[in-house]
Amino acid sequence: MKALVYHAPGKRSWEEKPRPAIQQPADAIVKIAVTTICGTDLHIMKGDVPTVTAGRTLGHEGIGVIAEVGRSVSTFKPGDRVLISCITSCGICEACKKGMYSHCEQGGWILGNTIDGTQAEYVRIPFADTSLYRVPGGADEDALVMLSDILPTGFECGVLSGAVKPGDTVAIVGAGPVGLAALLTAQLYSPAEIIMIDLDDNRLAVAKDLGATQIVNSTGAKTVDRVLELTHKKGVDVAIEAVGVPATFELCQDIVAAGGHIANVGVHGESARLKLEKLWSHNITITTRLVDTVTTPMLLRSVTSGKLEPRKLITHEFKLGDVMKAYDTFGNAAKEKALKVILRAE
Amino acid sequence: MKALVYHAPGKRSWEEKPRPAIQQPADAIVKIAVTTICGTDLHIMKGDVPTVTAGRTLGHEGIGVIAEVGRSVSTFKPGDRVLISCITSCGICEACKKGMYSHCEQGGWILGNTIDGTQAEYVRIPFADTSLYRVPGGADEDALVMLSDILPTGFECGVLSGAVKPGDTVAIVGAGPVGLAALLTAQLYSPAEIIMIDLDDNRLAVAKDLGATQIVNSTGAKTVDRVLELTHKKGVDVAIEAVGVPATFELCQDIVAAGGHIANVGVHGESARLKLEKLWSHNITITTRLVDTVTTPMLLRSVTSGKLEPRKLITHEFKLGDVMKAYDTFGNAAKEKALKVILRAE
Amino acid sequence: MKALVYHAPGKRSWEEKPRPAIQQPADAIVKIAVTTICGTDLHIMKGDVPTVTAGRTLGHEGIGVIAEVGRSVSTFKPGDRVLISCITSCGICEACKKGMYSHCEQGGWILGNTIDGTQAEYVRIPFADTSLYRVPGGADEDALVMLSDILPTGFECGVLSGAVKPGDTVAIVGAGPVGLAALLTAQLYSPAEIIMIDLDDNRLAVAKDLGATQIVNSTGAKTVDRVLELTHKKGVDVAIEAVGVPATFELCQDIVAAGGHIANVGVHGESARLKLEKLWSHNITITTRLVDTVTTPMLLRSVTSGKLEPRKLITHEFKLGDVMKAYDTFGNAAKEKALKVILRAE
Amino acid sequence: MKALVYHAPGKRSWEEKPRPAIQQPADAIVKIAVTTICGTDLHIMKGDVPTVTAGRTLGHEGIGVIAEVGRSVSTFKPGDRVLISCITSCGICEACKKGMYSHCEQGGWILGNTIDGTQAEYVRIPFADTSLYRVPGGADEDALVMLSDILPTGFECGVLSGAVKPGDTVAIVGAGPVGLAALLTAQLYSPAEIIMIDLDDNRLAVAKDLGATQIVNSTGAKTVDRVLELTHKKGVDVAIEAVGVPATFELCQDIVAAGGHIANVGVHGESARLKLEKLWSHNITITTRLVDTVTTPMLLRSVTSGKLEPRKLITHEFKLGDVMKAYDTFGNAAKEKALKVILRAE
Repeated sequence: MKALVYHAPGKRSWEEKPRPAIQQPADAIVKIAVTTICGTDLHIMKGDVPTVTAGRTLGHEGIGVIAEVGRSVSTFKPGDRVLISCITSCGICEACKKGMYSHCEQGGWILGNTIDGTQAEYVRIPFADTSLYRVPGGADEDALVMLSDILPTGFECGVLSGAVKPGDTVAIVGAGPVGLAALLTAQLYSPAEIIMIDLDDNRLAVAKDLGATQIVNSTGAKTVDRVLELTHKKGVDVAIEAVGVPATFELCQDIVAAGGHIANVGVHGESARLKLEKLWSHNITITTRLVDTVTTPMLLRSVTSGKLEPRKLITHEFKLGDVMKAYDTFGNAAKEKALKVILRAE
Repeated sequence: MKALVYHAPGKRSWEEKPRPAIQQPADAIVKIAVTTICGTDLHIMKGDVPTVTAGRTLGHEGIGVIAEVGRSVSTFKPGDRVLISCITSCGICEACKKGMYSHCEQGGWILGNTIDGTQAEYVRIPFADTSLYRVPGGADEDALVMLSDILPTGFECGVLSGAVKPGDTVAIVGAGPVGLAALLTAQLYSPAEIIMIDLDDNRLAVAKDLGATQIVNSTGAKTVDRVLELTHKKGVDVAIEAVGVPATFELCQDIVAAGGHIANVGVHGESARLKLEKLWSHNITITTRLVDTVTTPMLLRSVTSGKLEPRKLITHEFKLGDVMKAYDTFGNAAKEKALKVILRAE
Repeated sequence: MKALVYHAPGKRSWEEKPRPAIQQPADAIVKIAVTTICGTDLHIMKGDVPTVTAGRTLGHEGIGVIAEVGRSVSTFKPGDRVLISCITSCGICEACKKGMYSHCEQGGWILGNTIDGTQAEYVRIPFADTSLYRVPGGADEDALVMLSDILPTGFECGVLSGAVKPGDTVAIVGAGPVGLAALLTAQLYSPAEIIMIDLDDNRLAVAKDLGATQIVNSTGAKTVDRVLELTHKKGVDVAIEAVGVPATFELCQDIVAAGGHIANVGVHGESARLKLEKLWSHNITITTRLVDTVTTPMLLRSVTSGKLEPRKLITHEFKLGDVMKAYDTFGNAAKEKALKVILRAE
Repeated sequence: MKALVYHAPGKRSWEEKPRPAIQQPADAIVKIAVTTICGTDLHIMKGDVPTVTAGRTLGHEGIGVIAEVGRSVSTFKPGDRVLISCITSCGICEACKKGMYSHCEQGGWILGNTIDGTQAEYVRIPFADTSLYRVPGGADEDALVMLSDILPTGFECGVLSGAVKPGDTVAIVGAGPVGLAALLTAQLYSPAEIIMIDLDDNRLAVAKDLGATQIVNSTGAKTVDRVLELTHKKGVDVAIEAVGVPATFELCQDIVAAGGHIANVGVHGESARLKLEKLWSHNITITTRLVDTVTTPMLLRSVTSGKLEPRKLITHEFKLGDVMKAYDTFGNAAKEKALKVILRAE
């Protein structure tokens, strides 16, 4: 079969590889129907993720059809259409029993990281019963690919950890795909205001279309002033960090109201300054989280019932065989005005 | 009347001042029966708290007798014995309605800070109906003084914000009075283990007596290793910071388990490093809080029913007129083996 | 001034009464601008509410202008436009400090019950600082009258106590004004499905317009079967009772899923059968609640931001002087297709 | 092997049966070391539980040693000592993913009910990975048998569902083994008062020893008055029903304070009257629950750390071969002063 393989920083190819086989009784083999590329895949291509070694098939998102199941898989059979979760969960360990699948002792984020991933014609999924979700009949499968990673990430790490409530004022720092996923899912809790903050006017315009009530271009130094002005000097109830650099995390500290939440979604490569000299008495809550995908069934119901429209995040479509070109487009997101790219098997 | 007055860093005196009078309809004048000295008072004496100006009577803790009430005070009358809260609450503003009295628009921590405090023969208490608590008949009033500040501080900022639960492993960094108040009140939730960490062996011995299941002297570099060893390499469910310097806050980051809480109690004067490069995917929650004293009624019930014994924190007793000497003792806490000192009016 | 006065079951008149005066320092006198009639007022007129005695001015909803304030009122002054809450809260007692204003020791539901109410030209409001809310400039005041009672009632007793969440299936039994208020406010939490159940096809049609995804006419015996069919035999996550008779409360027991909630909103005059022989092992939660109006500030923000449109509940408008006619219309709600009637002072 | 077999109401025998064998890949065969008898077993013997058919081996509690595992069992191997949970959980279905194991699609309470149970020399445990718990080395295994059912039942259905908090006043109606398990585990949350109510003075005396602060013999009609007297006319914050008849459930309604909780633990065979005419405005929460055993790991830690001492519930010990005699003793609990009886394999 064909797969998108990482060889070294900057080096990838769409190449022939052996089709994966069942290794454990709880495995399933899934034939990919639709997949996509994540910002994390770009980080891998830069060499920023040391757990990914040469020869690895990338990708941790997708929809497909069960081709084969191990002997202990009880809820899926060949022919079933399934949503693949970016997080693999054994369902047995202490972390899984707490619903913290991200820290599953044998799973977590392993697809396209420590085992071969979904940007391929076939993929092996360990612990299939607890890591795959049945696709409802008649569903928009392109839209559902957004539920493999970015929707639960924006929702769990941003909206739920940030405890967004009706009537709240929310700021989301970063209008990339995950920030926009937080924007879409925050609206499930009907905050009064959502202020979207980014450097890119195109992404801010998209955010406005997707439900932001205010947009702030953070180029220049006046961002904090502008947010305080929009909030009558009080700051925001919830600040969602969806970039992953110290400056944006520190911005969140400057705009959060007393009693508020900072919910970190971004992937960080270095420490940030925590302004405890101000915050110690400010009654705030800061959360970090790797997505657990515990909300996938709820998000599926919300998409099916039309409360959530993740299709709006899709800007480009490619054939799976054109994944090399899709990487180029997604890698030039600002210029290409790319959010999520869909890769469809033929 | 006599009062302990701050004049300049290092300069205080026990001197004659006019007895306070009712200024607003919601005020009460309280004759002090018992008061104490807080670590914050020592910070003020060093000049670290710029809101405190020359001429200020210090103190924000105490028990007393109502001497006089303003015309809108409805729940207290002269002769009633009351517990004074370190936090003044108007009961009306948005923060008070949320139970975040610490950020009351007209109150918060003002006693012995921006208005005269309790280390005096009389004190004026604004918003008496919502800032004083009736002392139950027959109560141990020395013990109840611990409810003016340190018990709710340890409990709300440490135990509640840290979400201590039965079966948890908790670490408390700092065995001063507030850290020990966290230790006492954490036991209301029956964690399986409480590891107390401090540099002072005497305080650690006290902690052991008060219910710590493990003690770790953090002199030297092995503290993190020792805590990980005690927790089978997993770290603690809750790390309570009760010191207020970057090193102890960073220690909390090194010992907290995935999915755990860091509850800041300490008063910080500078920023700390937040190790987001590790913590972003660690599913942790960090909280800061100035005590709201919303739990004072519950703590009163717990003391009255014998579930909580704050008297154990009292090491020294003085006459109120000897408050200058009491400051000297409390200021040499390590040498004097002092935790809380009681000052009793004659 | 003129007021709508209850004299005996079935006997009311619009008559001259002395304008109310300040009695306590925390009182305010409010000149009514807009008021309305509640289903409870009809119960009073039937003689069902023994606490209401002859000579009482009815009404517990309204918007007005501060005419005069007692000397301890600190947040309002003459000329301020205010929303009157159906619940009076002292802000001081144990219940108020817990946010359970409905059980305020000196307040609770007293307006138009044990003291004169709002269906008059002027009304005296005790504990004004904690029982009135400032009307935002430019607000639709007719719509805001819905926040005096029915919106917080539907929201707090139905939606919050029922713990409605994104993705849930909710049934609301009873499509009267309070049931429809639950329908509007439930959508703040984006449930996947809202099934509205009533005997009146007109009200069900209104419910469909206001966001119900399914409607079920409960005339006849098939209601339970129909709800189970709509929920794939599982039942609903949340059943909101907004009628107040045993049959509808028992219906909720028959349609709630294992692990689900029954939130009682209806005012009941008799006991109901609780089917513990089935429910003991069904992991359900049943709640009852008299509205506390703690969510009024949040609901105000939601209306101001356009997330909530309570104006849709208004079907009729009258001059305040035509309140006798308005009662007739509201009393024939089914025939008149009346939901909420607005009474506007000239 | 030998097993205690139900034949008909009133008919049981200790008889030879084939040793169970692995039927599914997720099964384990456990050799019983210690087991016990539950009140539910007595109900079965009366013929009250129609799902139990002739020939069934009874028992759903116990500790044992793994004798054999199916091919997909990954966390246990022969020789491991395990705690058997009364609830079987597949770990995969919607209910299990929510932590509501009691409603597992393939599990729930099946042991000694729809499949053979633990009062035997060997038992087959389906879904072993998610239904068994490793016994910590050096543990008191007799005490741990209390964790198969009654401790999680009292804790989850009574204490957690009742939301017991520090400072609360709690009433527990019924001082049988499960009521006493609620008493022991309620103390993990340090309520100020626990009032134990029962008809049997011996059981009340035991309750006093185990931590009840007040005891009330409910023989006669004054129980409600007595509880109101003990609570200064306010009623209790939490009423835990641990009997299972209408009268005790109705008693809970009479003694619960406004804003309080009624947590049903008892197994009910008939409906009860719910006094909605009083309770509709009383802001109360009623919960029902079949134990999920999600707290078993936490309870294990609490027993291991000495915070919880379930051994205190054991009154009698027998050899497993004397199970017929043990049933007689347990069936005459009042006369024999029996709480839990231990059956130990030789």
